[in-house]
Amino acid sequence: MTQTETMPRTLARELPRHEGQTVKMQGFLHARRDLGGVQFLVLRDVSGITQCVGSGLTLPLAESSVEVVGTVKAHPKAPGGFEVQVQDFRVISAATEPAPVEIPKMEWHVNPETMLDYRVVTVRGLKERAALKVQAELLAAFRDHLQQEGFTEISTPKIVSAGAEGGANLFPIDYFGQPAYLAQSPQLYKQIMVGVFERVFEVAPVYRAEEHATSRHLNEYLSLDVEMGFIQDEEEVMALENRLLAAIMTRLKERCAHEFTLLNATIPDVPAHIPRISLMDARQLVTEKFGHQVGGKDLDPEAERLLSQHFAQTESSDFVFVTKYPRAARPFYTHADHNPDGSLNPDTTRGFDLLFRGIEITSGGQRIHDHAMLMDSIAAYKLNPETLEGYTEVFKYGMPPHGGFAIGAERLTAKLLGISNVRYARAFPRDRHRLTP
Amino acid sequence: MTQTETMPRTLARELPRHEGQTVKMQGFLHARRDLGGVQFLVLRDVSGITQCVGSGLTLPLAESSVEVVGTVKAHPKAPGGFEVQVQDFRVISAATEPAPVEIPKMEWHVNPETMLDYRVVTVRGLKERAALKVQAELLAAFRDHLQQEGFTEISTPKIVSAGAEGGANLFPIDYFGQPAYLAQSPQLYKQIMVGVFERVFEVAPVYRAEEHATSRHLNEYLSLDVEMGFIQDEEEVMALENRLLAAIMTRLKERCAHEFTLLNATIPDVPAHIPRISLMDARQLVTEKFGHQVGGKDLDPEAERLLSQHFAQTESSDFVFVTKYPRAARPFYTHADHNPDGSLNPDTTRGFDLLFRGIEITSGGQRIHDHAMLMDSIAAYKLNPETLEGYTEVFKYGMPPHGGFAIGAERLTAKLLGISNVRYARAFPRDRHRLTP
Repeated sequence: MTQTETMPRTLARELPRHEGQTVKMQGFLHARRDLGGVQFLVLRDVSGITQCVGSGLTLPLAESSVEVVGTVKAHPKAPGGFEVQVQDFRVISAATEPAPVEIPKMEWHVNPETMLDYRVVTVRGLKERAALKVQAELLAAFRDHLQQEGFTEISTPKIVSAGAEGGANLFPIDYFGQPAYLAQSPQLYKQIMVGVFERVFEVAPVYRAEEHATSRHLNEYLSLDVEMGFIQDEEEVMALENRLLAAIMTRLKERCAHEFTLLNATIPDVPAHIPRISLMDARQLVTEKFGHQVGGKDLDPEAERLLSQHFAQTESSDFVFVTKYPRAARPFYTHADHNPDGSLNPDTTRGFDLLFRGIEITSGGQRIHDHAMLMDSIAAYKLNPETLEGYTEVFKYGMPPHGGFAIGAERLTAKLLGISNVRYARAFPRDRHRLTP
Repeated sequence: MTQTETMPRTLARELPRHEGQTVKMQGFLHARRDLGGVQFLVLRDVSGITQCVGSGLTLPLAESSVEVVGTVKAHPKAPGGFEVQVQDFRVISAATEPAPVEIPKMEWHVNPETMLDYRVVTVRGLKERAALKVQAELLAAFRDHLQQEGFTEISTPKIVSAGAEGGANLFPIDYFGQPAYLAQSPQLYKQIMVGVFERVFEVAPVYRAEEHATSRHLNEYLSLDVEMGFIQDEEEVMALENRLLAAIMTRLKERCAHEFTLLNATIPDVPAHIPRISLMDARQLVTEKFGHQVGGKDLDPEAERLLSQHFAQTESSDFVFVTKYPRAARPFYTHADHNPDGSLNPDTTRGFDLLFRGIEITSGGQRIHDHAMLMDSIAAYKLNPETLEGYTEVFKYGMPPHGGFAIGAERLTAKLLGISNVRYARAFPRDRHRLTP
């Protein structure tokens, strides 16, 4: 082995510790400029970019994997404040074609379809990868916090015989000649697992065969699912989500400051008690304060935006829980709310949504745990009890009161970072027309 | 609120700290016995089981959710050494039917099909849930260790336009009228992501439409995938997996001693350097030492068992890497081995397997990173370069030398715990005939 081969590798973020020393760096040739006698190159590694300067170098195409050995010098104008003066330069693996898009010059406003067509290489962009790095830390924070609160990770089937939310929007699969579908949600399975571990979570893909392409929908997305048993009501579930979001934002502040700066985004403060407003009050507020008439039974996207604006202004909160959803706007398994006298209210549920910066990022609530009440609800929703039999069965066996929620990982990531299209919060998004790469 | 409502809940494992005190416990009625004046009940919560004794109680059906308030007394014959003398008993949610199988009396030798038919309730069994708890800790240890070594978590599509390992064993999906498939492996995507984060991992389901039902195969399983760039050769990949397994077993020893005791299983010691043997030497050893003739190009299950037996006896290792797989036994993307003179060996690869206690739990190796070499390999394997174009494209852009591996989470869990059928290492397994629950 040569002396260079045995040198340890130094990363871009470690340079300040090595001022004046000779280091070996490896990475991708992010950018290059040849001024005849002098060559400038920018090396990109997992931790950042480094400006290097040398002479007499023959530079390969951008994106080639290269190795640089050189001396670290302070240089105020270089990224990170240091530059490497190249003594030795080696091509590890040469690019054989120019990249279809110049990686350092990509901008969010480039045609998204073009960017996604070439995603195998555009995903290397600094902003593109920053979004995915933030998401990775978000997932780690999600799991760590839940484990600390006594939750157990589960893994449930994505091939199912029926949909959890009814029959619409399902992708059909041929399962050895039997009809099957891709799971829309682990909803029913996570409830079953409350009977096993009391508190459970899952991070896994879910599937919605939505025909329409919008900036907020994906056909395959990562669902962060939580379910907890032995609760009093949905307040305990909201309190958990409140603590969980605070833990996530704390970790992002500790570990992703660089990525948020790069994307010119700010990490929100999570109030100790996120404001709550009932859906009916929310609809009234949006109409009275902003003159926006809300159709349907829920909030429309404009109403979500206005309601968020209101709570940002009046309570300095980027988050707001919308509670007490009407029965007509919630799925069959949602628990009814109680009247003040303790009787069940047939028109209002213990379902809630969480809005963040103008968009819904969570649906949650208390679920029905009583078998007879569940069967009544299935009948009232005119669903077929036979297709739900594998699910309803477990409610004969003493299921405790329970509730939970799901967060769409890409939507939360995109909103955190100010990314306008949720497709950039996935490495290889699937939409109505996009099945590759 | 009553006084009981405001009492904090105590878990089974916390009882030793509360000797002589009055506690409130909640959980499932695991077992019950009514001796006329005196009632014995066993309460099951997430942390264990507690024996309770009371008088004048009307006990609901087993599996009901219940609450017990009582005094903690030392009792050497009770599980955990403590008993609760019941002062107050409340049914939270009554079971409406007897469970189809008596949960405390279930044994592994009960007909597995029956156990799986009633999985929504049999999964509550102490041994059943212990297996899933161990798996959850295994996943957490896997991620934590890789994050410490600078790996970034990724999430890649499970709906794909072509299979990574060729066309066999794919489940077809109707994707808005386009033909698509469930991903067999994130292989190609994790390689692409080496160009972004250099070191990546993913924990996600994968799909194999295997027609045959065996005790070691599942049609949907959790794949623990790892890929790392800027390597010298596959030795670095094996060294990483060695460290990773050591970290996993350390965590299981710290957190899952109870589960291993319950299942009468031992956590293996991971050698500082897991033994390696080339495939050709392994075949020869099995033939010469055990008289077992191995067909095909690989090892058969009996050869895997014998080879593991050999290394357990001679090197006290439950693990062995089988290295230098012949070209014919590896997929097209596997990197060729080098001859002593540095030229490429057309017949031998840098692919390896890892055997654990008689079964393969990992396939891995160095991958081809050179575009021309990859195209040659695709031609030599008589694959259609067009269907692989989305994958091969990225190799035009300076991919560094890289390699990785995948571990089947259920197979590793089952082998660790001595569970004979891998289906019990999943909450809701999918096999040739099983699509529910």
